[in-house]
Amino acid sequence: MSSLKDRAEGIRRVAAAMGKEVYSGETLKNTVFRKDLQKSDHKVVTLEEAIVRSGLKDGMTISFHHHFRGGDKVVNMVVDKLAQMGFKNLHLAASSLSDVHAPLIEHIRNGVITKISTSGLRGELAKEISHGLMKEPVVFRSHGGRGSAISTGDLHIDVAFLGASSSDPAGNASGYSRSEHAKSICGSLGYAKPDAQYADKVVIITDDLVDYPNTPNSISEHDVDFVVLVDSVGDSSKISSGAIRDTKNPRDILLAMSAADVIINSGYFREGFSIQTGSGGASLAAVKYIREKMIEKGIHASFALGGITAHMVKMHEEGLIERLIDVQSFDRVAAESIKNDPFHKGVSANEYAAADESGSAVHYLDIVILSALEVDVNFNVNVLVGSDGVIRGAVGGHPDTAADSALSIIVCPLLRGRIPCIVDEVTTLITPGSTVDVVVTEYGIAVNPRRGEIAERLRAAGMKVVDINALKDLALEQIGTPDPLPFGDKVVGVVMNREGTVQDVIMNIED
Amino acid sequence: MSSLKDRAEGIRRVAAAMGKEVYSGETLKNTVFRKDLQKSDHKVVTLEEAIVRSGLKDGMTISFHHHFRGGDKVVNMVVDKLAQMGFKNLHLAASSLSDVHAPLIEHIRNGVITKISTSGLRGELAKEISHGLMKEPVVFRSHGGRGSAISTGDLHIDVAFLGASSSDPAGNASGYSRSEHAKSICGSLGYAKPDAQYADKVVIITDDLVDYPNTPNSISEHDVDFVVLVDSVGDSSKISSGAIRDTKNPRDILLAMSAADVIINSGYFREGFSIQTGSGGASLAAVKYIREKMIEKGIHASFALGGITAHMVKMHEEGLIERLIDVQSFDRVAAESIKNDPFHKGVSANEYAAADESGSAVHYLDIVILSALEVDVNFNVNVLVGSDGVIRGAVGGHPDTAADSALSIIVCPLLRGRIPCIVDEVTTLITPGSTVDVVVTEYGIAVNPRRGEIAERLRAAGMKVVDINALKDLALEQIGTPDPLPFGDKVVGVVMNREGTVQDVIMNIED
Repeated sequence: MSSLKDRAEGIRRVAAAMGKEVYSGETLKNTVFRKDLQKSDHKVVTLEEAIVRSGLKDGMTISFHHHFRGGDKVVNMVVDKLAQMGFKNLHLAASSLSDVHAPLIEHIRNGVITKISTSGLRGELAKEISHGLMKEPVVFRSHGGRGSAISTGDLHIDVAFLGASSSDPAGNASGYSRSEHAKSICGSLGYAKPDAQYADKVVIITDDLVDYPNTPNSISEHDVDFVVLVDSVGDSSKISSGAIRDTKNPRDILLAMSAADVIINSGYFREGFSIQTGSGGASLAAVKYIREKMIEKGIHASFALGGITAHMVKMHEEGLIERLIDVQSFDRVAAESIKNDPFHKGVSANEYAAADESGSAVHYLDIVILSALEVDVNFNVNVLVGSDGVIRGAVGGHPDTAADSALSIIVCPLLRGRIPCIVDEVTTLITPGSTVDVVVTEYGIAVNPRRGEIAERLRAAGMKVVDINALKDLALEQIGTPDPLPFGDKVVGVVMNREGTVQDVIMNIED
Repeated sequence: MSSLKDRAEGIRRVAAAMGKEVYSGETLKNTVFRKDLQKSDHKVVTLEEAIVRSGLKDGMTISFHHHFRGGDKVVNMVVDKLAQMGFKNLHLAASSLSDVHAPLIEHIRNGVITKISTSGLRGELAKEISHGLMKEPVVFRSHGGRGSAISTGDLHIDVAFLGASSSDPAGNASGYSRSEHAKSICGSLGYAKPDAQYADKVVIITDDLVDYPNTPNSISEHDVDFVVLVDSVGDSSKISSGAIRDTKNPRDILLAMSAADVIINSGYFREGFSIQTGSGGASLAAVKYIREKMIEKGIHASFALGGITAHMVKMHEEGLIERLIDVQSFDRVAAESIKNDPFHKGVSANEYAAADESGSAVHYLDIVILSALEVDVNFNVNVLVGSDGVIRGAVGGHPDTAADSALSIIVCPLLRGRIPCIVDEVTTLITPGSTVDVVVTEYGIAVNPRRGEIAERLRAAGMKVVDINALKDLALEQIGTPDPLPFGDKVVGVVMNREGTVQDVIMNIED
């Protein structure tokens, strides 16, 4: 069996047994210098070519991330192109949508987009949808819920279009660029990661095509099929727009100080604690007061999670917070930090907040401060639908962090103008009251009866703990019982629980 | 439709239409401080518990990485435990195996392991297998080939047992540790990454269980099911053992200088070039001479790939090499560098060398220097089976890098003692001659006739270019025609081409 002839026979026999082909005896050799090769890399195509070659068909699901927030240019650019190419009946599954996506209204009217899944909706698009623009209800998921839905296949993405501030021709991409031609920065690409990992086809859309290897990178070439170079993927000046501006509002500052006091006296303000602050002025501002107490008491945090802000970066650099776990950079300072600091780690939506992963970061989270549009007397929270019945917010990581943190604090004024924030029943159920521990208002602090031990600690510290019904009554006293909202009988939105069940519906609002 | 009753009806209706359950109205709240939580994390179990809960059954496939090389303790530990638990008929799919895995011989005899897939085999285990120990042939794949086989499902892993030098209770794991209790270090976990990503169940075995979050990390909790704490996963002093020792052999140094000269005069030694050196003294030593020329000519490399060594780290830190792309750290200096330097990036076997990924690093590789056991007159290379017919090496990234680099150079002495290295026909075909460009021996340089332009450039630089047949004849002159090897008629090994076809078989050797 040692002769060449016998060996060839052995190869044939083994291949047949394994169900494999026999090697043809010829492997092509690359002989091109890599710098020349990159120019002709076959992954780098036009947007139209990427769409054609992705195999996208009418009725399929396309996805996007929202790391540029109000500055995003990718959703409109891609959907305009798809409309121009004649696509119809698409399902747009974005990690979130905002004011800037009002042009989608036309594409919905024209039948290009007939289904939307998102975490949030704002502005004209939200208003139109609330008034019944779409036949199919918009499906709302939390950030962790979306990650889970993608990884389990519940939300199957056919083609993901993912904006990136840099990519090499192979598709190694990041939310920042190290090149001299850098045009944009958004920091973490956490909400794009599940899409990159699980979508059938992945198109990176970048405004800075750099040489291979674009390391360190957030998205790997392993997951990327096409790379498209465009003029601009987003306006980075707007990544801290909207919900996440720093507050100068005196009431917000009062609420922030009060929330900080709750934390300090909660029993969870201990060496090695972990913390997340949601968007919203008061919750972001609370960090400043916590910082002072940490320095005073010599306490260090093991990590800050979420939505990382300049405040968190500063505290990390001061040595007060050991690690930053960043699913979305909330401002430019955070975006620059994730670029330069290996201990500021970008994580996927799943690693951040998936309910079906016992290892996701929220499971290790001690304290979260969140905002609310409405809290009801059962501690249920609404962050999505305004008290006028119009969609104007986002589910975000609210239900994820409330459920999995050891201490969830909602910071919320009693009234916003003539609108009560502490109510009998939330307009839309986003975060179940069973997961909300403390509600901080300027008229006192309500503690969920399930967490009697926290109420005791706050009282022992001399804080004003009140019954949440008393807060609701106080609100009603000041503005009177509001008229019922003129909801119609068409379901315009569905709120999915983070574990994949149907938690609430949003009805159309009539003028 | 605005009343609570109507909303509940809407929820039921929508849930039915979506095929989903209605939210039960109750979410459990975590109320445990994270440091306390970690102690009771349900992913952290004993090895036996991990095996039981993984659902492993007789006949399934288990996998391992070889980042600790000769110092690995995980394979033997796990297989001993599986034997003790009574498992039979398992398929052991390691990224490679070495001398230290001789205890597998007993487990093969006892029917615990009945199938092996690997890149390499050495020592007693290799000798026994060459003599016919196993019923089924061992399946050999290149590193890129294994990555592809795993990602396409051709090699399906049921349970991966992956050694790590640190892990948090969630399974965020690395080949190094930042804790004061660090016991081991192996650097990149590149060969473990496909297993982590694609195996049905993933068990991290670590000798340093650290607090969450263990960032930056190589393997994500997203992919991990169980974490097992053991005394030791590997002896880090042995990661540079075996094939990758620094040479003091004068002939190797001569070969290294000659290889460096080939590179410098090949036409590929240009600003922004990229390079990889395989294991083997001469190829590693060549880097030193290339470094001198880079400094002299003011040339910088864009990246070094592979098997990263202390030499490469030094050149990176000197600014001569912009990025390090590391699938496996070849020594402790490299392992420490990947821990501390974000521009020293760990990549998976797929990102490194998969043939089915146009973005994998080898596609951007200009120059690779490789070693060989045998090269034949058709430039075919054997790095697996000794000239005595006994398996004693590893496929490694040899065929991957030879095929996809622009210039592949084999460094090989004419003879090793009485054993010819330039032969008529290789004992086993590992790297097809069509992908091999230059063979450097101490008696001259042979250039593949397909690459006439390179031969011309070398001649123009005054280098001694010879016909490979002349080298073969010279070897035969010195030692005479060797006797044919006493191969039997049993197939003991199958060499898969990196694209998944059957390329060669290895027959049993008789005494």
